[in-house]
Amino acid sequence: MLALAGYPLGLEFLFLDPSPDACAAALGQHLCADYSDPGALARLCASAQVVTFEFENVPLAVAERVAARLPLHPGPLALRTGQDRLAEKKLFQRLKIPVPPFRPVDRREALDAALEAIGLPALLKTRRLGYDGKGQAVLHQREDLDQAWQAVRGQPSILERKVIFERELSCLAVRAGDGAVRYYQVVENTHRGGILRRSLPRADDPLQRRAEEYTGRVLEALSYVGVLAFEFFVVDGELLGNEIAPRVHNSGHWSIEGAETSQFENHLRAITGLPLGNTATRSVCAMFNCIDEAPPLAALAALAGVHPHLYGKLPKPGRKLGHITVTAADPAELEQRLTNLKAVAPELFP
Amino acid sequence: MLALAGYPLGLEFLFLDPSPDACAAALGQHLCADYSDPGALARLCASAQVVTFEFENVPLAVAERVAARLPLHPGPLALRTGQDRLAEKKLFQRLKIPVPPFRPVDRREALDAALEAIGLPALLKTRRLGYDGKGQAVLHQREDLDQAWQAVRGQPSILERKVIFERELSCLAVRAGDGAVRYYQVVENTHRGGILRRSLPRADDPLQRRAEEYTGRVLEALSYVGVLAFEFFVVDGELLGNEIAPRVHNSGHWSIEGAETSQFENHLRAITGLPLGNTATRSVCAMFNCIDEAPPLAALAALAGVHPHLYGKLPKPGRKLGHITVTAADPAELEQRLTNLKAVAPELFP
Repeated sequence: MLALAGYPLGLEFLFLDPSPDACAAALGQHLCADYSDPGALARLCASAQVVTFEFENVPLAVAERVAARLPLHPGPLALRTGQDRLAEKKLFQRLKIPVPPFRPVDRREALDAALEAIGLPALLKTRRLGYDGKGQAVLHQREDLDQAWQAVRGQPSILERKVIFERELSCLAVRAGDGAVRYYQVVENTHRGGILRRSLPRADDPLQRRAEEYTGRVLEALSYVGVLAFEFFVVDGELLGNEIAPRVHNSGHWSIEGAETSQFENHLRAITGLPLGNTATRSVCAMFNCIDEAPPLAALAALAGVHPHLYGKLPKPGRKLGHITVTAADPAELEQRLTNLKAVAPELFP
Repeated sequence: MLALAGYPLGLEFLFLDPSPDACAAALGQHLCADYSDPGALARLCASAQVVTFEFENVPLAVAERVAARLPLHPGPLALRTGQDRLAEKKLFQRLKIPVPPFRPVDRREALDAALEAIGLPALLKTRRLGYDGKGQAVLHQREDLDQAWQAVRGQPSILERKVIFERELSCLAVRAGDGAVRYYQVVENTHRGGILRRSLPRADDPLQRRAEEYTGRVLEALSYVGVLAFEFFVVDGELLGNEIAPRVHNSGHWSIEGAETSQFENHLRAITGLPLGNTATRSVCAMFNCIDEAPPLAALAALAGVHPHLYGKLPKPGRKLGHITVTAADPAELEQRLTNLKAVAPELFP
């Protein structure tokens, strides 16, 4: 989606992706190699003028090597922070952004004391390499401790209070190299099985301003360049910082049709030094992920305002195979269009 | 732009283009060969499930060979008609679509009699291989006859009354294999030096219904599948048929941002057998072509509602290097945004 947004800006793309099936491969040169492959990195650095990533589990050492040779946006500091739940939470605390109670847990023995401090229910999450609900365990009772520790395979983790939230919100923002920042409408997200299912951009959300304030602090602190997503829980009408994604984010996919400048185009503008684009919303809209399978394309294509985006990936349990954005002129029309969509693809609805 | 619209639909692309610099090459497999190269055609036919063209000077014989092996949309009949100004005009006449007076001119000797019948001023146009004002000559006086005949290099031509038009309109439409048709808002076009400069989609144009009627007749007559553009002159408030383009068309580029489904996506939907998408307009908008040179990208990117589309082509006199679409919520905002654009890129304005 970055490449699709970038060609009209006159950009060219080279992708480093270890998967031979990389869906970006059709849209530019594909270096099919491990992220740390020295030859591939040398070629990447020799060809590119600027480098970015859209997957935050790129090894930090690779990012640092690239950043030593040419502009990497976002930079290693943002990547390091986004890769480590503990570093994230500490950053939020330092920036006076409220977070659910948490404790670092490096050893099994530390888990009991952490649980004592945090209380039940709680979530044990690996500090690193977790996404889409992977590397997590819920603790409902003391007896779940051993099983949870096994679930995270004894890796350095954090134990965190499982908050009862009213809503999950994300704030997408883009920051340019000169410090200019633009925010998108906050998005209300619904997950199932740890995977994002639906995103609803919210006009005039009472928490818009607060979300921007918190997100702005993070962008500043990380000297961030590019698009960042900040995910929040809403508890008692207030935001609690959950995590950041230092990249274009699934909860911003609606912006392709729904905003004047998509998150993809704005990320590219930021990292190539162009002025940022208008983030104003163009349509009322809703975004749904296609998990495991995508609804029949012909059924979707028959519906007004329904925009399918298939990723050309082979189906695999839990895999995001595409997303669908529904646009409308007003909330009533959106409601009608969602009803039409639900009739042909009820499985999309969380 | 077809490929950019097609990837989200899960399509894959192979391009046959004789130019080594083909700008589509970055977006799929590029067969760099002459259109009539037997090996390239064999590979194209072996790989593709459906074939289309976005340039109507593909040799008809090639189209016929492809169509004998797999679905080609639009088909050879549409291509043959679109390639020949005389066939076009005769089709319009047969369909009771008014046209400016014209006469076929195959030999120099026929020119005098034709001019007698048509009157001055007149246009002499080659029947084939004309586009962007190439292969045309204006006759203001009898004495221009020889020079005009030289300008068309003695090729089979038509002599046509040069009408004094109030406006130039085009009607973009898409027809599916099952006969379903959708029309976009008619577009008011401005040419300079025979090249399209500006397109303004018109809400509630008094000629919308008539334009649809005429375009629908052509689509039916040609058993057309895909997007077609029909260009008209407006004289005394009535439409005169000028020419058709059997392909996605420059005057429909605004639809990428401005319509719910772009002309590119709708062309792909039609030729792949998907239901057609909604052609409703999403924004007030205007489209400008970048001829000879493109304005500095950074200056464009700084303007709200301004969407640059660069084609990655090397500059050449008269070449279209890109286009710019300006979107807005209402006509007043569009006016303001056009004023802003004019301040940084006055050369775009006709």
